[in-house]
Amino acid sequence: MRAIDAAISRCGRPHFNNGAPLRPLPPAVLPHVGCIPDRHHSPPKRLGCLGQDNHVHQLRHQSTSRNMRLTIDTINQRVRRAEYAVRGELAVKSEEFRARLARGQGANLPFDHVISANIGNPQQLDQKPLTFFRQVASLLENPDLLKHPRVLVNSLDYQPDVLERAKWLLSKVGSVGAYSASSGVPAIKESIAKFLERRDGFPADASHIYLSAGASSGVNTLLNVICADKKSGILIPIPQYPLYSASLALLDATPVPYNLDESKAWGTDLDTIRQAYEKAKADGVDVRCIVIINPGNPTGASLSEADIRGVIDFASRQNLVIMADEVYQTNVFVGKFHSFKSVLRTMQKETGGKYDGLELASLHSISKGMVGECGHRGGYFELVGFDPQVEANIYKFVSIMLCAPVIGQCLVEVMVNPPKPGDPSYELYNREYTAVYEGLRERATALHNAFSQMEGVECNQPQGSMYLFPTIRLPQRAIDAAAAEGRSPDEFYCMRLLEETGVCVVPGAGFGQAEGTLHFRTTFLAPGTEWVGSIVKFHKEFMDKYR
Amino acid sequence: MRAIDAAISRCGRPHFNNGAPLRPLPPAVLPHVGCIPDRHHSPPKRLGCLGQDNHVHQLRHQSTSRNMRLTIDTINQRVRRAEYAVRGELAVKSEEFRARLARGQGANLPFDHVISANIGNPQQLDQKPLTFFRQVASLLENPDLLKHPRVLVNSLDYQPDVLERAKWLLSKVGSVGAYSASSGVPAIKESIAKFLERRDGFPADASHIYLSAGASSGVNTLLNVICADKKSGILIPIPQYPLYSASLALLDATPVPYNLDESKAWGTDLDTIRQAYEKAKADGVDVRCIVIINPGNPTGASLSEADIRGVIDFASRQNLVIMADEVYQTNVFVGKFHSFKSVLRTMQKETGGKYDGLELASLHSISKGMVGECGHRGGYFELVGFDPQVEANIYKFVSIMLCAPVIGQCLVEVMVNPPKPGDPSYELYNREYTAVYEGLRERATALHNAFSQMEGVECNQPQGSMYLFPTIRLPQRAIDAAAAEGRSPDEFYCMRLLEETGVCVVPGAGFGQAEGTLHFRTTFLAPGTEWVGSIVKFHKEFMDKYR
Repeated sequence: MRAIDAAISRCGRPHFNNGAPLRPLPPAVLPHVGCIPDRHHSPPKRLGCLGQDNHVHQLRHQSTSRNMRLTIDTINQRVRRAEYAVRGELAVKSEEFRARLARGQGANLPFDHVISANIGNPQQLDQKPLTFFRQVASLLENPDLLKHPRVLVNSLDYQPDVLERAKWLLSKVGSVGAYSASSGVPAIKESIAKFLERRDGFPADASHIYLSAGASSGVNTLLNVICADKKSGILIPIPQYPLYSASLALLDATPVPYNLDESKAWGTDLDTIRQAYEKAKADGVDVRCIVIINPGNPTGASLSEADIRGVIDFASRQNLVIMADEVYQTNVFVGKFHSFKSVLRTMQKETGGKYDGLELASLHSISKGMVGECGHRGGYFELVGFDPQVEANIYKFVSIMLCAPVIGQCLVEVMVNPPKPGDPSYELYNREYTAVYEGLRERATALHNAFSQMEGVECNQPQGSMYLFPTIRLPQRAIDAAAAEGRSPDEFYCMRLLEETGVCVVPGAGFGQAEGTLHFRTTFLAPGTEWVGSIVKFHKEFMDKYR
Repeated sequence: MRAIDAAISRCGRPHFNNGAPLRPLPPAVLPHVGCIPDRHHSPPKRLGCLGQDNHVHQLRHQSTSRNMRLTIDTINQRVRRAEYAVRGELAVKSEEFRARLARGQGANLPFDHVISANIGNPQQLDQKPLTFFRQVASLLENPDLLKHPRVLVNSLDYQPDVLERAKWLLSKVGSVGAYSASSGVPAIKESIAKFLERRDGFPADASHIYLSAGASSGVNTLLNVICADKKSGILIPIPQYPLYSASLALLDATPVPYNLDESKAWGTDLDTIRQAYEKAKADGVDVRCIVIINPGNPTGASLSEADIRGVIDFASRQNLVIMADEVYQTNVFVGKFHSFKSVLRTMQKETGGKYDGLELASLHSISKGMVGECGHRGGYFELVGFDPQVEANIYKFVSIMLCAPVIGQCLVEVMVNPPKPGDPSYELYNREYTAVYEGLRERATALHNAFSQMEGVECNQPQGSMYLFPTIRLPQRAIDAAAAEGRSPDEFYCMRLLEETGVCVVPGAGFGQAEGTLHFRTTFLAPGTEWVGSIVKFHKEFMDKYR
């Protein structure tokens, strides 16, 4: 065993290290944590070990399996099949580089810091938390502070409305250390309902709102309830946020991919959706739901009202549930955000009931937008038109995990009910909020401009969310070099980009892309423009090398 | 539809209202939220509507189903089958009573407040958060406070070690609003490893530690990876915490129940476990894992070292993974807590490697103990002896949900690394901690004494956790009355207890109990002793009524 461990440790590939900084591990004490599974041990289209000795891995696998109850071959194969590129091999490698630099061992690296443009993690990068949010949270965590209102106001820059909000939330929540009701604190659900009414101009009902641990947990809940078996099909956009494909893999349900139209700013194309639907139906798939991510991840698109109307009409005709992932609803740079709920209610009003039967779930979160509190895992979903018995089962499902983090629920409340003009905290809140918004827009534009200069790169104008998803056209020699490494060309490109510049992005393959096209996704959250320049420089050198 | 809604609204049973306080709902606007699903719409052994008109429900069911994509019959039937009694009908009804009392509409109720003894939710009841924990959390939420150390120390009772801890955590976490690495903040994992080394006297490795959103989320992760299909069997104790049975229902895996031995203070009985295992094996079940909850939920037991040795030896012989749910490890009132890891490592040392192949996952949480921060959803699990490729898949699974709440992770760090003697915060911390511990012990004893006086009630001495799980023997007439209501006798008893006293407990059926026995689970978290007296009084009247 020990000899095998040592042999593997020398193989030099990036290994899966659970996200912890690398440090020298005494092999006798610490079993080596394996390599990226979907690279080495799953279907044949993925090849081996970057030219290293795959045999060693085989050997180890057999060796460790002998006495193991659980092996890669006996665990839940749905977990094995699930892929989640956003936190895959490139992310792990970038963390290795970051740790090496932190240890002062990065002298031979061609960069001096790592730019994590792979994850929409605003506060890891430039984005500062909004003061009002965090001041309220600090009082919720330590209500004893409220015994000293003068100190808070006079010495610590807390405005009176911060104290009021904290007191109000505490009166509703009790302690943020206590479980709340499974679907969330009732008063917070009421606040969300009021927000939805203001946003959409239509009534909203708190009893159909469910707090969740970020939108991801809401998606997980909904897909668990909607998908009955292998035949249950869910229309998902391509490119998509891989949470959807991974969750469907775990549930052993059927993703029914439909391509977004890159030529129309990544909008929805009804003919494409219809074809995907008809094909799946012909294959015996029971298509139940269509997922829309708007604004788009990874596309950066913001859907027009006409696109949304088209989807609603299609879903209504085919009796599909709509799952509207609207977590980027405030990250809109072109035009305005149209919620599915508001468009649906408008269409219902216009047609006198034609669309009344439609079931819509829409999700939101504190992770994105100008709030950017993803570490707090807060979010909610609203259900429209669901059968009460189905809702009761959704309630039961969320109750098994007890409740969403309560401090995250409170931040949801602050997000949907921020300081208003005239409130003591408004001016600072508004200034901070606007600065984040403008900063995102500026960086999106700078990045978009950089992509416009790059040979073989095309990128739609940034409309929304936190991402750009440029097309890249690579020379044949680069494609061959990628194949020799057992990588897809976009993955090969992104790996070289990381190694040369320290900029970590995600290959298009991680999100899905139309056959024969290549992309990558980058956030535009990282501060400064130096890193943008380094991408431009890398790209030129890469193209020159493989021309 | 409206007529049907109105008819249902009049039926007067407790309805599922998602935990929100009841308020008058205009039926035209708000679709009625259905009745408890497992009462009305699942297997035949459960009967209808407390003597009300079941036909109306049938009618409504058909009526709403017509245009619905998702109905109770088309959703994931695994969700439908899952049961989670801790937050079921009784809990919902108790929330209704609470809301009624809050609205001043409780004049005709025979009690003036509701005692939620159904959920281990310490801070909802008497338990105050530990000051050190919350002071640190307040600084993590608002790091700007650290610019004013003198104000914090001189005017707000923050000790210097609170500031130091917050600074240190911030230096490791960055912002609590940012995603951490998927398996948790590396420095926090190191802290946990050091705690485990101190606790067990054996090395622990941070790279095998995974932060989770409470232990529930850790259980969910592990069961998802361990259970491959319907045939995968998991030995679970009876009585059990229903998270296990519910999760297995969702995964469509096979629970293999083994009875704990009530006559031996709810300890493990190896013969019983072996019989359950053999029977399952004979039925073609691939038994993969044994779950142990120690200290016990709902039993209140604390396992002896001998019991743990027996389980480890059995698991080793049968090549079973051990899942040790050790969230109540500090709630021990008799003897001492023995962790599975320490006993395993001791046995490995003693036998020179005999137990080396064993795979152990042990879980802990900030939700229970003297910390009681369940609303923060913090926890972790440690893996011992797992195959690296399996661990890589566990990592991938947790990465799909991104990361555990970061402020919860930080509270885990504080829990495993609390103020030490000599630290400025130690005295207060120790005082608060001891007061909570003693308070729990006193109330456990008071409740146990009360049960000893009650006719037909027997209860083991409280050894650990937060619960007592007395046996109740009910007169035949009570059993008949329960059947007439379509309820199990224990559920009938608990429903009457709630209606008469406002005390909410959970029927034994929700946890499983040996054939022919009846129990209920109550926490001993609620302050005061008045409610204990009200149980005694109720019991006497109940027994008299049905004698």
